[in-house]
Amino acid sequence: MKYILLAASTLDGKIAKHDKHFTDWTSPEDKQHLHKIMDTCDIIIVGNNTYKTAIKPLSKRNCLVLSKSIKKLKQTNNNLVYINPENTNLKKYLTTQKYKTVCILGGTSIYSLALKNNMVDEIYLTIEPIIFGRGLNLFDINIKKRQFKLITSKKLNKLGSILLHYKK
Amino acid sequence: MKYILLAASTLDGKIAKHDKHFTDWTSPEDKQHLHKIMDTCDIIIVGNNTYKTAIKPLSKRNCLVLSKSIKKLKQTNNNLVYINPENTNLKKYLTTQKYKTVCILGGTSIYSLALKNNMVDEIYLTIEPIIFGRGLNLFDINIKKRQFKLITSKKLNKLGSILLHYKK
Repeated sequence: MKYILLAASTLDGKIAKHDKHFTDWTSPEDKQHLHKIMDTCDIIIVGNNTYKTAIKPLSKRNCLVLSKSIKKLKQTNNNLVYINPENTNLKKYLTTQKYKTVCILGGTSIYSLALKNNMVDEIYLTIEPIIFGRGLNLFDINIKKRQFKLITSKKLNKLGSILLHYKK
Repeated sequence: MKYILLAASTLDGKIAKHDKHFTDWTSPEDKQHLHKIMDTCDIIIVGNNTYKTAIKPLSKRNCLVLSKSIKKLKQTNNNLVYINPENTNLKKYLTTQKYKTVCILGGTSIYSLALKNNMVDEIYLTIEPIIFGRGLNLFDINIKKRQFKLITSKKLNKLGSILLHYKK
């Protein structure tokens, strides 16, 4: 199984201004890239807040929504499952489903959970040429320093949104 | 006067793990670039913590150290002045000194002060291909979103430290 972390951040490392803030600040070119990568994934893992802020594009996709307020696995329709990662073994569940490519879409707590559980093989990080000053971080977890390797970088538009592709 | 902000961050947007942590995690190629840019600057503005953690390379350069515990402007030798930005008009002081190129070297509170006071015309940001998970942010200040433009990007080494050059 391959885990791909997908994220966009400001040049000061923020993935949003606050919890309810998701996609209105990223470039159209980043959104295009995002959907292109999601097309290659069997399942998208996303937190409940992130799912709610992007429910329209995500409702068409196969999603696994992580929420700490869910008592047990809940399948609401063909392409939407809710899981509480505190009472369900997430990696075991993904294995039983025979997924090959898993996309980690955030937010902070889901990215952190993935990093903690060695569920980050690749990272696609788009850096938008803006500054928020304060906001939500990509990760919020105490770990030892993790080394990645930059595979490619690609300037996406005139203002200079840049897409960085990392591997473990 | 031109203000250049110089910084290195992890791919998760951290400039250090903690206050005393400065330069041991950045690449040699970033350090080379840093010194090349500093060579072009008339003065380097730096916080007291950052100055202490990099006192050896910085003591050879013309430095303005910002500290809130300094009562009044203190010149300790030919190339070292301490100023408290809360009781001295920093921009006025820089103008009277006739500096043309000013380098903002950090840490977080100095970068934030510069951003707040429109003292950021250019940014050189090196993104190292590592993750800290938690640490110090580039900025820590409530501002409206600021737009920059990416001028160039340059891969500095095999692991993929990448140098991003932004302008206002």
